[in-house]
Amino acid sequence: MNTSSHSLRLMPAGIDTYSHPVVYMHADCHVCQAEGFRALTRVRIDCGRKWVIATLNVVTGGCWLPPDAAALSDAAWQALQPGPGALGRLSHPEPPAAASFIRAKVYGERLAQAQFNTIIGDALARRLSDLDLAAFVTACSGDRLDFEETIALTRAMQAAGKSLNWGKDLVLDKHCVGGLPGNRTTPIVVAVVAAAGHIIPKTSSRAITSPAGTADVMEVMAPVELDLTAMRRVVETQGGCVVWGGGLRLSPADDALIRIERPLDFDSDGLIAASVLSKKAAAGADRVIIDIPVGTTAKVRSSAAAAALSARLNAVAAAVGLELKIHISDGSRPVGRGIGPALEAADVLKVLRRDPDAPADLRERALTLAGLLLELGGAAGTGPETAAQLLDSGAAEQRFMAICEAQGGFREPETAAHRTQVTAADSGTVTAIDNRLIARIAKLAGAPQRARAGVLLLARPGDRVQRGGPLFEIHSETPGELAYAQDYAARQPGPFSITELS
Amino acid sequence: MNTSSHSLRLMPAGIDTYSHPVVYMHADCHVCQAEGFRALTRVRIDCGRKWVIATLNVVTGGCWLPPDAAALSDAAWQALQPGPGALGRLSHPEPPAAASFIRAKVYGERLAQAQFNTIIGDALARRLSDLDLAAFVTACSGDRLDFEETIALTRAMQAAGKSLNWGKDLVLDKHCVGGLPGNRTTPIVVAVVAAAGHIIPKTSSRAITSPAGTADVMEVMAPVELDLTAMRRVVETQGGCVVWGGGLRLSPADDALIRIERPLDFDSDGLIAASVLSKKAAAGADRVIIDIPVGTTAKVRSSAAAAALSARLNAVAAAVGLELKIHISDGSRPVGRGIGPALEAADVLKVLRRDPDAPADLRERALTLAGLLLELGGAAGTGPETAAQLLDSGAAEQRFMAICEAQGGFREPETAAHRTQVTAADSGTVTAIDNRLIARIAKLAGAPQRARAGVLLLARPGDRVQRGGPLFEIHSETPGELAYAQDYAARQPGPFSITELS
Repeated sequence: MNTSSHSLRLMPAGIDTYSHPVVYMHADCHVCQAEGFRALTRVRIDCGRKWVIATLNVVTGGCWLPPDAAALSDAAWQALQPGPGALGRLSHPEPPAAASFIRAKVYGERLAQAQFNTIIGDALARRLSDLDLAAFVTACSGDRLDFEETIALTRAMQAAGKSLNWGKDLVLDKHCVGGLPGNRTTPIVVAVVAAAGHIIPKTSSRAITSPAGTADVMEVMAPVELDLTAMRRVVETQGGCVVWGGGLRLSPADDALIRIERPLDFDSDGLIAASVLSKKAAAGADRVIIDIPVGTTAKVRSSAAAAALSARLNAVAAAVGLELKIHISDGSRPVGRGIGPALEAADVLKVLRRDPDAPADLRERALTLAGLLLELGGAAGTGPETAAQLLDSGAAEQRFMAICEAQGGFREPETAAHRTQVTAADSGTVTAIDNRLIARIAKLAGAPQRARAGVLLLARPGDRVQRGGPLFEIHSETPGELAYAQDYAARQPGPFSITELS
Repeated sequence: MNTSSHSLRLMPAGIDTYSHPVVYMHADCHVCQAEGFRALTRVRIDCGRKWVIATLNVVTGGCWLPPDAAALSDAAWQALQPGPGALGRLSHPEPPAAASFIRAKVYGERLAQAQFNTIIGDALARRLSDLDLAAFVTACSGDRLDFEETIALTRAMQAAGKSLNWGKDLVLDKHCVGGLPGNRTTPIVVAVVAAAGHIIPKTSSRAITSPAGTADVMEVMAPVELDLTAMRRVVETQGGCVVWGGGLRLSPADDALIRIERPLDFDSDGLIAASVLSKKAAAGADRVIIDIPVGTTAKVRSSAAAAALSARLNAVAAAVGLELKIHISDGSRPVGRGIGPALEAADVLKVLRRDPDAPADLRERALTLAGLLLELGGAAGTGPETAAQLLDSGAAEQRFMAICEAQGGFREPETAAHRTQVTAADSGTVTAIDNRLIARIAKLAGAPQRARAGVLLLARPGDRVQRGGPLFEIHSETPGELAYAQDYAARQPGPFSITELS
């Protein structure tokens, strides 16, 4: 604790600053003056036993903020939860020890376990600014973390959160490295594997840089923001669940880094491996399958890149005691028809319900992964067959509905109010769909924050289309987003490649 | 322009967000709804012919913001300067083309001229967020920019601002790479060189990561925020000036990067070279001396590092047409007695006034650089001698006072109200002073934002001190800052190394 501190009455600013704590103080407030606080100073605020480090925005006008008060952004208010009329003690925070380690990493030095622990600790205590975290994420990108550093970062991230223990010998889990729009196998895989009698306590993330994360899609069909007690009840009765990991604070360090990676829109092998495996270890899994789709417009673009990521994942898994099976899959095109939370949920339900119109590729991919997981779980040689039986018999659908009910109640996906079709400029055969461009359009349309927004594919690679015939449909919840996505779709070379094959 | 846009009445939020444009809008505002804006969305605001891209903070409570209005932070308000009752058109900005180039650089790719131009252009148009810029700065740090990239970045930065033309064959300039507290030679060098009849239109920066920049120190003695017309008048009448470069927008790109580098507290050879030389070229200089102090606690820590930086500076200078002379100097200890704007100004004035108490090291360093500049200016062999004559005769003092008057009027430095001495824990001889620790204490005391804050050295390397005898004095304008700096000074191993020499 700092010796010099001053108190001000705390009040909510009622401003959402994207979960970054901000404190608003008057330029002529006596505490600002006495402490020498300035715009962008990081200020420690103590209230009772709680404290937070917030960025100062200096109020220079208006009359909403009394000079003897400090107003807190939503995130800062949440962190302190002050009672009515509560005072906050404001002081300069300790300089973060992590800053010099981040600087060392920026300059290309290797970091050791203790240094990663400090960085993660200071990040979680909000001692580091968003800029510091952006520098750290950048300095760890590309090839800049070696395997040992990746292991150290993974351990630091795991140690910073809770770890679950299921009291079972065998806990299965899966993860997909992503980048493939519509590739929403998880709810199907969990349903099949749980129907087979295994434990698969799946925690999923919301979208990081994509139009939908598994948690976003699952949330269309059932609540996903369960606490640990509720999650445990679901898994104990149903064998599996699909819940949002962020709410469980299993890996708060991962949440803190993802908060920065999301707007930066890049990540890297080291950060992916640390993020995925720290979460799997924390979730209590011991055998995990990882799907790596490879394609020129997927997140992993080449076999060489997949091999490099696999090697790193295997090294880290061995170090933290996870049995890993890596599955390299085709990442050349989107999966299913829908891209965006509700549209992907609709595809998932069609597969589980054995709808004749269900996307065959999504079904195939889910069965492959479920089969591999069943084999990891002991069913050597019979995995794929068992998986197909569980799906075809309706056992998986039944289990999925039971999981949804246990998570708080199933709900049917709805369709967006604003839709428009994008048509082919020429006749020919669809030879490719650019994953990134189609994902970008779905995001501009409002996905994932607007659950019903996204893109519905109306043609697939291999299909013959006529000039003026439909290629895809943009779904939006607001006319502004629809127009924006449509503008973008019209300007681009277009996500569809169409060739007149001879 | 985007086809979909909506208008709201603009009002000042009266919030200083450290020159980052922020727009505050109600969560239930119809434009937020229609456009799908969310916290941290980057929003384009057009007002008349002006526009700005601002970060959205969503107002969730309070009653200071009417739902049909958008409130602008100080920086956003400044950018648009809306008339009373003016409407702003709010829309999604174009996705910045620079984002993918920054990502490429993060992944270790080389960038070409056009890509640097795009990054600088998007940065100046505020299309890039602070996080994007932090990623760019980080990705360019360490050894990550090669010489050609540094040249390209320098050209991009120079092209983004104005360039001055003095209509003379010979325009001199100087720069110090810094990191050496108290090394405030510039006002003295400018006074001597101008007194010799040369043109030296010196633009200086405010502190980036140090307790004082030359502009901060000069501002204690005279106004430095001159516009180009005023600066030109000073140089045309006095031959030299010492003004703040940031206000001239000679290198707005440099200002934009420094805004991010300052809180990150790191820079790198490539960014230093691009920053310094783009500004020198823009200021119309053609012969420049660069002082690189080398010391284990200076910015440049070794001869090898100095050689690497020199090679890069020479390569860039040759490419942009500057004649460069690099002077490597002793960076092992602070220079003069004061550290902080007013304390350093006092040292400068003592040297110019030939005060018997003037710090000899500051005088020596200033004369060396002035002598080298006079030789660059044609006085081969007689530079140091001429420089000493101009200083000793009072010609330099006279010229300095005339420059101050021309810049708006000379003022005498004042002393801080709150001071405390830090004393020696043991008797012995001072063998070293850590530049970084002493600078850190001066910053915690309030420098450079508080002009009178800083550190006054009361003992120098080589001095014999008694236990309890004074080492340095902390100066602050507020009790809070004094206490904070004192706490820090007490906790550290201490900036002074004291050894009982046998």
